[in-house]
Amino acid sequence: MASFSIEVIFSPSLYQFRQIKENFDVVVVDIFRAGTTICTAFQQGVEKIIPVGSVKDAMDYKQKGFLIAGERNGIKLEMADFGNSPTEMIIASIKGKTLVLTTTNGTRAIETATGANQIAIGAFTNLGYLSEWLLTLKRNLIILCAGWKETFSLEDSVFAGALIESLIQQPDRFHLFDSSFATLELWKSAIGDLASYLKNGSHYQRLVQLGAQVDLDYSLRINSTRVIPVFENNYLINILI
Amino acid sequence: MASFSIEVIFSPSLYQFRQIKENFDVVVVDIFRAGTTICTAFQQGVEKIIPVGSVKDAMDYKQKGFLIAGERNGIKLEMADFGNSPTEMIIASIKGKTLVLTTTNGTRAIETATGANQIAIGAFTNLGYLSEWLLTLKRNLIILCAGWKETFSLEDSVFAGALIESLIQQPDRFHLFDSSFATLELWKSAIGDLASYLKNGSHYQRLVQLGAQVDLDYSLRINSTRVIPVFENNYLINILI
Repeated sequence: MASFSIEVIFSPSLYQFRQIKENFDVVVVDIFRAGTTICTAFQQGVEKIIPVGSVKDAMDYKQKGFLIAGERNGIKLEMADFGNSPTEMIIASIKGKTLVLTTTNGTRAIETATGANQIAIGAFTNLGYLSEWLLTLKRNLIILCAGWKETFSLEDSVFAGALIESLIQQPDRFHLFDSSFATLELWKSAIGDLASYLKNGSHYQRLVQLGAQVDLDYSLRINSTRVIPVFENNYLINILI
Repeated sequence: MASFSIEVIFSPSLYQFRQIKENFDVVVVDIFRAGTTICTAFQQGVEKIIPVGSVKDAMDYKQKGFLIAGERNGIKLEMADFGNSPTEMIIASIKGKTLVLTTTNGTRAIETATGANQIAIGAFTNLGYLSEWLLTLKRNLIILCAGWKETFSLEDSVFAGALIESLIQQPDRFHLFDSSFATLELWKSAIGDLASYLKNGSHYQRLVQLGAQVDLDYSLRINSTRVIPVFENNYLINILI
């Protein structure tokens, strides 16, 4: 029987040191909030999302007439149509449109994931759909946490553990690196009361201060968006249609 | 009442992104095995330890007549007098001598920790002594895990959690970053049977394969070396004499 490895990487800066080198897919994780915003936009029928690294690039798209969602340090960009907010996506008129997204951490993580067969976006809101799809790929998996300005982030790591738990129903088929084992342990501690557990995280507290409590609550709703955002040809599409 | 922050950094490569910028000490952690080897050598009366990054530098010291302890990828260097092995230190004649140490991960972590007031070595074998001393310093603390070739290491992270637990007897005096909270959670999961828990780690398994089981068991003996190794003027000394 084939055996696959799962490795969690806690910062885009550590991607270059990954232990899995071949035959792998990457799931990019940015729970609060880029990953959840992306899933929600596709759930609402957006056609494409173009992630861009810099505000300047987003501005160029704006001038060409694109819709822009963007933030820096948790705060909506003045020039943007939307913040990096999943609950804003729910009420936005975006069906069939292309959205340009720029965020503090999430878009950088997507750009980092070179060498992968597929790059997908993972969030609590698409956990089950993503996990089912990953099992059909039969390849090694890197879970790349966007983190906060290159540092470890609690919510992204706990999600990594949740995804791993949903994948390893046959544990002997999977090799877990230390990082994967640790996130699985964190998920087991968190599962009883996920919202309370994640309140211990700095970014949760930062977003509460910024008035984004509704986004935080929404981001923890498991399987509420039936989508699998995948990065192809420099933009994201939803392959679960 | 003064308040201090504690941040855990999982790889020397992430040290540059640390969130604590001022008024801090660093504890360098490399449980298997450099940190434990250093503590044991001081317990056995060694006077100084000179950590060096490259095998070439160690060779230069060798030619000047110094005793050398060193490994690469877990295997003793051919030119070295000792491996990077705490149990070899117990039977070595090193009292009053200077030892030169070069290892795969630990020595690099010591070199990385710039800007700190004090740089100390932490291991399970000196946990209580180290923790008491850190509380007297009344500064922020960075716990820098040596890891394995820049990646996350289970045993170093679990130790970070153990050290944090021993420091935060008055939790309201300490701010824990996400990384600190996560390692504290790992420690709480591990504490019931530390040895079994750490068997899930890749480096534990690697060292068992290399015949170092006796070093692994020894490295988990809490408070068995009454030492505090501190880095000053390019070498380590024991300040607890």
